[in-house]
Amino acid sequence: MQLGLVGLGRMGGNMRERLRAAGHDVVGYDRDAELSDVASLAELAEKLDAPRAVWVMVPVAFTDAAIDDLADVLGEGDIVIDGGNSRFSDDAPRAERLHERGIGYVDVGVSGGVWGRQNGYGLMVGGAREHVDRLMPVFDALKPEGDFGFVHAGPVGAGHYAKMVHNGIEYGLMHAYAEGFELLTASELVTNVPGVFKSWRDGTVVRSWLLDLLDRALDEDPELAELSGYTEDTGEGRWTVDEAVRLAVPLNVITASLFARFQSRQDDSPAMKAVSALRQQFGGHAVRKP
Amino acid sequence: MQLGLVGLGRMGGNMRERLRAAGHDVVGYDRDAELSDVASLAELAEKLDAPRAVWVMVPVAFTDAAIDDLADVLGEGDIVIDGGNSRFSDDAPRAERLHERGIGYVDVGVSGGVWGRQNGYGLMVGGAREHVDRLMPVFDALKPEGDFGFVHAGPVGAGHYAKMVHNGIEYGLMHAYAEGFELLTASELVTNVPGVFKSWRDGTVVRSWLLDLLDRALDEDPELAELSGYTEDTGEGRWTVDEAVRLAVPLNVITASLFARFQSRQDDSPAMKAVSALRQQFGGHAVRKP
Amino acid sequence: MQLGLVGLGRMGGNMRERLRAAGHDVVGYDRDAELSDVASLAELAEKLDAPRAVWVMVPVAFTDAAIDDLADVLGEGDIVIDGGNSRFSDDAPRAERLHERGIGYVDVGVSGGVWGRQNGYGLMVGGAREHVDRLMPVFDALKPEGDFGFVHAGPVGAGHYAKMVHNGIEYGLMHAYAEGFELLTASELVTNVPGVFKSWRDGTVVRSWLLDLLDRALDEDPELAELSGYTEDTGEGRWTVDEAVRLAVPLNVITASLFARFQSRQDDSPAMKAVSALRQQFGGHAVRKP
Amino acid sequence: MQLGLVGLGRMGGNMRERLRAAGHDVVGYDRDAELSDVASLAELAEKLDAPRAVWVMVPVAFTDAAIDDLADVLGEGDIVIDGGNSRFSDDAPRAERLHERGIGYVDVGVSGGVWGRQNGYGLMVGGAREHVDRLMPVFDALKPEGDFGFVHAGPVGAGHYAKMVHNGIEYGLMHAYAEGFELLTASELVTNVPGVFKSWRDGTVVRSWLLDLLDRALDEDPELAELSGYTEDTGEGRWTVDEAVRLAVPLNVITASLFARFQSRQDDSPAMKAVSALRQQFGGHAVRKP
Repeated sequence: MQLGLVGLGRMGGNMRERLRAAGHDVVGYDRDAELSDVASLAELAEKLDAPRAVWVMVPVAFTDAAIDDLADVLGEGDIVIDGGNSRFSDDAPRAERLHERGIGYVDVGVSGGVWGRQNGYGLMVGGAREHVDRLMPVFDALKPEGDFGFVHAGPVGAGHYAKMVHNGIEYGLMHAYAEGFELLTASELVTNVPGVFKSWRDGTVVRSWLLDLLDRALDEDPELAELSGYTEDTGEGRWTVDEAVRLAVPLNVITASLFARFQSRQDDSPAMKAVSALRQQFGGHAVRKP
Repeated sequence: MQLGLVGLGRMGGNMRERLRAAGHDVVGYDRDAELSDVASLAELAEKLDAPRAVWVMVPVAFTDAAIDDLADVLGEGDIVIDGGNSRFSDDAPRAERLHERGIGYVDVGVSGGVWGRQNGYGLMVGGAREHVDRLMPVFDALKPEGDFGFVHAGPVGAGHYAKMVHNGIEYGLMHAYAEGFELLTASELVTNVPGVFKSWRDGTVVRSWLLDLLDRALDEDPELAELSGYTEDTGEGRWTVDEAVRLAVPLNVITASLFARFQSRQDDSPAMKAVSALRQQFGGHAVRKP
Repeated sequence: MQLGLVGLGRMGGNMRERLRAAGHDVVGYDRDAELSDVASLAELAEKLDAPRAVWVMVPVAFTDAAIDDLADVLGEGDIVIDGGNSRFSDDAPRAERLHERGIGYVDVGVSGGVWGRQNGYGLMVGGAREHVDRLMPVFDALKPEGDFGFVHAGPVGAGHYAKMVHNGIEYGLMHAYAEGFELLTASELVTNVPGVFKSWRDGTVVRSWLLDLLDRALDEDPELAELSGYTEDTGEGRWTVDEAVRLAVPLNVITASLFARFQSRQDDSPAMKAVSALRQQFGGHAVRKP
Repeated sequence: MQLGLVGLGRMGGNMRERLRAAGHDVVGYDRDAELSDVASLAELAEKLDAPRAVWVMVPVAFTDAAIDDLADVLGEGDIVIDGGNSRFSDDAPRAERLHERGIGYVDVGVSGGVWGRQNGYGLMVGGAREHVDRLMPVFDALKPEGDFGFVHAGPVGAGHYAKMVHNGIEYGLMHAYAEGFELLTASELVTNVPGVFKSWRDGTVVRSWLLDLLDRALDEDPELAELSGYTEDTGEGRWTVDEAVRLAVPLNVITASLFARFQSRQDDSPAMKAVSALRQQFGGHAVRKP
């Protein structure tokens, strides 16, 4: 089928290739003329037969602007899909704004990172049944072959919600392996830490794709000596904790994983300075100067 | 090769089958005569040509007794393998006791649960190089086919140590998925929670064998309504936290997962009673009677 | 000085008494005519000489309505004080709305609970210097005697912000004692748990007002047998964690305390059901039916 | 009464002064002749009338040696008191060894730090009723005046157990304030962070001795700029977590406080390196070099 695709960066560019390889007719637009198939959103809209479907794949800071611009060139019966990392709570207002012009809205959480072009992308979709049905050929091309990798999770917002939780879980999984790595490294007994991780890739309860990746990283750098522990976080982990707080769900593991990232970016911890100050006050404990 | 196998319960019995299917000559002993190939450990020793190798696969509470009994019927040059869930710190004393009689000792952490007979077992091995080399035909038969599923992790104790950390990680992984399940369940937006988990099985960053199992469980009982949250813990999770404390490794995620199991077994929390008491005292907050 | 006081519930009523005892001229209004000094906000405004100061002390859900109603009967140069448990982020919009009418706004976080009338209230104040200065006689009467119990923490919002953090800390303090209570209770060695808490009230590092209250509670009920662990949370704890997430501050202790309250209100944990499901799947572990 | 006192360092020296000020006859021994009243333990024993009581106040690494040396110069009916920071599980074996010679043993957890000489020490005592009764004059002199500061917590070991839990709680309390300090510091709204802490010293729910000390530290250094966050831990925090694990008590707050100290001593986190490695593998996320 025909699909407009706005945003041809690493993710969007790969998706265009995967869709075209599956026989779809993709018209891509990017502000970077080198990447773009058309000169403007207006041209993109012209090149698509109505009712159109246009997938937006831009950094989250630009999504609302891109959708508003699109709304000006699209019309009744068209559908806009946001495949970026939007916060789920932004979806309903967008859907409403588009609905006023007769334009449908579908939100898609996309997982798979740089591996998606080859393996297929995990797709979590929110929106009206009729809109999702119309887009199934696109979803089928993007997702991996087989029974998995796609879900219509619920109404508008549910796709990004599921992706948010996916990323929250991802934080926890990564940190569980990371803690195991640190403990094995600290042990006097285990002399072959990379070998232990490699062995776990089959036959064990902890085997996973993330473990495969960690083994791959350890193959390249067995002590991870070339890496700093300084770790960014993207919005999804924070939103997950915000939701936990809102819904009164105790999320100790995922929150600890998020807080560990915050910690990793501190040169020194103000909280621990306060602890040091207290120890000095009551115990005369020696403390370190910075 | 020839192998004695002591303990023919669920794990030991399955391992006997997998070893025999690979062409090994296994002589099994169990206190349950129905399961046993021989009437006694003495007969087991007789049926094996020296130098012998005998794998002990009994509940951890009986391991030391089984090994001491074996020591009486084995002799110089033989090897005892403990494949049970022993604490790593029990391995060195055992190895020393056996060494005095010229008997070797190898510890093996075995992962894979009830699926191991079919998929192969993940094996983490500790011991002397020469002992491990002699046992490689057995390890090759038990492990999954392919490049993974086996590691010689270090000297005596390293196998159980690696298995301990494996289980610690397992606690964290399980709890990360579990928290995601709870948050999705609490959300008003996601209407197809089991579908979300199923979709994650391919194309996503969180795909894993545990996720496959959770999907399987949700297929059988989409709301897990037939299950209680009451959850036991085995020793490995506790030992992992003990090691974290000993080695000064911050293990927030794995510890939170362990503590959640403790919590799950409490009808009411004494700590939260104290919090209730305080709120009542300072704020006149209404509190619940039990 | 003269002060209008809107809301004469437990907190407001006590504050009226403390202010009058200090010689202030308080005109109180409450929807409950039995408690009220005047029949309406209009009458309250009439009874005060301009420039007026009116302190709002109503449940947070009614604060905005009360302030809007007040704005209609107050005028240029008057000041509204919110002493309720508002979220700090609500203060700036209120201040702006009032500012359009020439009315000042000061936010006050009030601590001390039911003990405040006797001991004095801890006051954390946000607002413009000139407004705070005008209100100092009121603050001096409400706060405890001595050097402490009052701070001008910053501009509008800073008072409620400081109170929010105060309550976050309070959660952590309470839970630290609570965990100690649970561990002592679980120990086989300590036979006099209430006596231990009582002893800590002097000479120790952990002495505090909360400890005094816990001792008081244990005097009444040494095993806290008459209490349930079911514990509510008010907004401040959640807002504290939201701020930690927003500002990337790792707040493990306070967050764990909040999550423990969430947990205390669950009959069964959906997360732990998922853990149970996984254990059953991979290990054939027996699980409990609900 | 007469008391032998072994170990005249900061704690022991202060206690000698407090005891003498109360009229007790203290004979002190220290390896440092400058501090010591006698030349040897033998001379110390001679100077005391039987039945003797000797209080040992030495660093925990030397406690067992000091007690064994004492046992050689003491006799039937004498009592040894350990007031150091021993692990509770060391008490019963010591008591047994002394009991074989007819010598009693009492363990005392001592709180109060450098402030104890002036304020009195919090004393948590384990031992037989008859031994504790005989020592009451000493306890009365060391403890603060008033109703608090002393408990006979249970049999041998209970004193150190209570002190261990006291210190675990202390970790949690300190960290709760520390987190509040960090959040206030991060806030754009609160301009007077030290003033907020000072205000809390009266009228609030969070007032405590530790808060007084934190205010004192902030008076000296309002941003704690002269301190590093690097923080040691003594044994009690670790033993508390070990007990939590042994007794299956979920101790999230105290454990998080302990782990934060571990974290504070790491230049870079091996766990976070593993997280960085994973992010780089699946997402092509930029990572920092060390």
